[in-house]
Amino acid sequence: MDEARWDIATPGLLLDLARFDANARRLADRTKRLAPDLALRPHMKTLKSVELGRRLTHALGADAITVSTLAEAEAFAKAGYHDILYAVGITRAKLPRVAAMVAGGVDCQIVTDNAHAAGEIARFCADHAVQLPVLIEIDCDGQRAGVKPEDREGLLAIADTLGQTAELRGVMTHGGGSYGAVHPGEREAAALQEADAVRSAARILREAGFQAPTVSLGSTPTAFAGADWSGITELRAGVFPFFDLVMAGLGVCERHDIALSVLTTVIGHQREKGWILCDAGWMALSRDRGTQGQAVDCFYGLVCDAKGTVLPDLIVQSTNQEHGIITVRDSSSHQLPDIEVGAQLRILPNHACATAAQHQGYNVITSNDPLSASVEWMPRFSGW
Amino acid sequence: MDEARWDIATPGLLLDLARFDANARRLADRTKRLAPDLALRPHMKTLKSVELGRRLTHALGADAITVSTLAEAEAFAKAGYHDILYAVGITRAKLPRVAAMVAGGVDCQIVTDNAHAAGEIARFCADHAVQLPVLIEIDCDGQRAGVKPEDREGLLAIADTLGQTAELRGVMTHGGGSYGAVHPGEREAAALQEADAVRSAARILREAGFQAPTVSLGSTPTAFAGADWSGITELRAGVFPFFDLVMAGLGVCERHDIALSVLTTVIGHQREKGWILCDAGWMALSRDRGTQGQAVDCFYGLVCDAKGTVLPDLIVQSTNQEHGIITVRDSSSHQLPDIEVGAQLRILPNHACATAAQHQGYNVITSNDPLSASVEWMPRFSGW
Repeated sequence: MDEARWDIATPGLLLDLARFDANARRLADRTKRLAPDLALRPHMKTLKSVELGRRLTHALGADAITVSTLAEAEAFAKAGYHDILYAVGITRAKLPRVAAMVAGGVDCQIVTDNAHAAGEIARFCADHAVQLPVLIEIDCDGQRAGVKPEDREGLLAIADTLGQTAELRGVMTHGGGSYGAVHPGEREAAALQEADAVRSAARILREAGFQAPTVSLGSTPTAFAGADWSGITELRAGVFPFFDLVMAGLGVCERHDIALSVLTTVIGHQREKGWILCDAGWMALSRDRGTQGQAVDCFYGLVCDAKGTVLPDLIVQSTNQEHGIITVRDSSSHQLPDIEVGAQLRILPNHACATAAQHQGYNVITSNDPLSASVEWMPRFSGW
Repeated sequence: MDEARWDIATPGLLLDLARFDANARRLADRTKRLAPDLALRPHMKTLKSVELGRRLTHALGADAITVSTLAEAEAFAKAGYHDILYAVGITRAKLPRVAAMVAGGVDCQIVTDNAHAAGEIARFCADHAVQLPVLIEIDCDGQRAGVKPEDREGLLAIADTLGQTAELRGVMTHGGGSYGAVHPGEREAAALQEADAVRSAARILREAGFQAPTVSLGSTPTAFAGADWSGITELRAGVFPFFDLVMAGLGVCERHDIALSVLTTVIGHQREKGWILCDAGWMALSRDRGTQGQAVDCFYGLVCDAKGTVLPDLIVQSTNQEHGIITVRDSSSHQLPDIEVGAQLRILPNHACATAAQHQGYNVITSNDPLSASVEWMPRFSGW
């Protein structure tokens, strides 16, 4: 085995900056070519780091962002972002924090898919003399939340309820169904369905006399499959700067595009069972088994050497809190490599959002060779 | 639905202090009755909170603790704990942090199951003129790490390699196989197997002339099943003060013993699908599906009202990062209850260690009724 070692405590998160930049450029170049007027509003839920967020928005030429929690919104607002979409259905109890950001000059947009919440927003706006910007969430594929795009009555009930006290800003959707689209044609169809859903909903609102300037959509698979974004004002995507094994399994990226890995150390062997034990358990890798339903199940992740080269058929087969059990796949003709206690390995994650969330920060590396790389620590935040 | 509301941001972690105390008392009372001389060394990997750790060790009459990371060890050392077992196989790169704690007066014991690491420990001790205390890890059930208790040659090789520079303190094992033991008789057998393994290994070492004063074992299921701890010096267990659905599924506790839950807010409905959407996704609940292989699969958790009463057959069927989808079980005769947007619910976790790890702290509650409870925030730490 290679003797190259990182001077980093294990388990720890490595972020390959060159791959991060290349992944960002890929989305920027593609959308610029296919839809030069389409604004990008990258999702910060994967990064949860102001430094990485700045690097990403700079690479994309974006100044607007999407967030999944108010804690993210507040962290990025504090860092100077003024155009933020909080993309999870709002409820009454969260409105004071939104209003505080708006009072501080941040265009913090919220979303809802129901008249009950719309009524709470309208009342809150009236009571507090504030006009919060609201997008109606549209359900483009039956996977999660949202009003059906053909549900004219439902859409207009929300728009009516928001009334003049809140500010109806338009519609948004997330094509999460594309995470199951394993063929490029399926992803193209998902992208079209995503775009049609919000175009249709926006048309219904406009025909009824409502303003709907924003028509927002996005998911990483559809962002790299869509071609017709006419009538769409902005594209959101989250996991693409890191990518992961789920995305590679779909064919949205290649394994060598994955920018995130978990550095781990071999702590023992159970040789008669063909096991290598390492110090990356589910606490470091997450319990996410997102590739379980894909053609190639990567279990808890694929194993690479310290330089990031995938070792043939080596997987993290199971995990305890602080132990990972590495084996060769059952179907493999490869032998278990002889990797001694103390050696470092890197694990490619199933789901970058989940794996990154287990860590307090990134060891950002400028090269995959420990001997030549510089390492910079970038903290992550968490919580709600 | 009940209108009782917690003044707590959602999603957020609730800890029922009365249940925590009762669960701690249950282990304390049981071991005191069956094995009055057995020391308790509770595992802090679940709590990761100095305040809760203090409360637990006080309730157990314990002054020694087990930890799963050096970050835990350092946090508890700083809080005044002087007898700490770091129960994950050590490697060379982690020894300086251990030595720093030892130099600060902490008896920080480390474990290994191989001669390679034993050699590194011995060299480090010689090079740094420090005598680190070491336990040899024993594999009692083939689930993870450890030397087989009958592997005399392997045991003595480690003991010989540690030599006089490190301090061989004895043996330890973890009966993790008991997590699959669904019948009390199976857990009793697992407890006996766990005890026999370390007794046997200690005997081998002693017969060969080595000191092995410490004979340590434990897991929550075996801690509540064992009866014969003769020759055992200490018992370790971790998840018992919280308990969870995995433990309830095994029969180690009842559902009403579970002290931990995630408070969530309803954010929408998809009525034609029978879905209630809430703001607890996998980020708040974790991706742990530990009950999947049990007789009753709890999916991502069982749903309770705001006071903690389980709602019949209501489960978190699936999760996105910040969305949970709540449904009635397929097999149920119950109707989906009418729970409006903005209402609060509580989710019982599959695996308390994994769910707690997703949060920055506990909202510790003195009652399950929001109208009478007081709420105190206790921070958690994380990382390695």
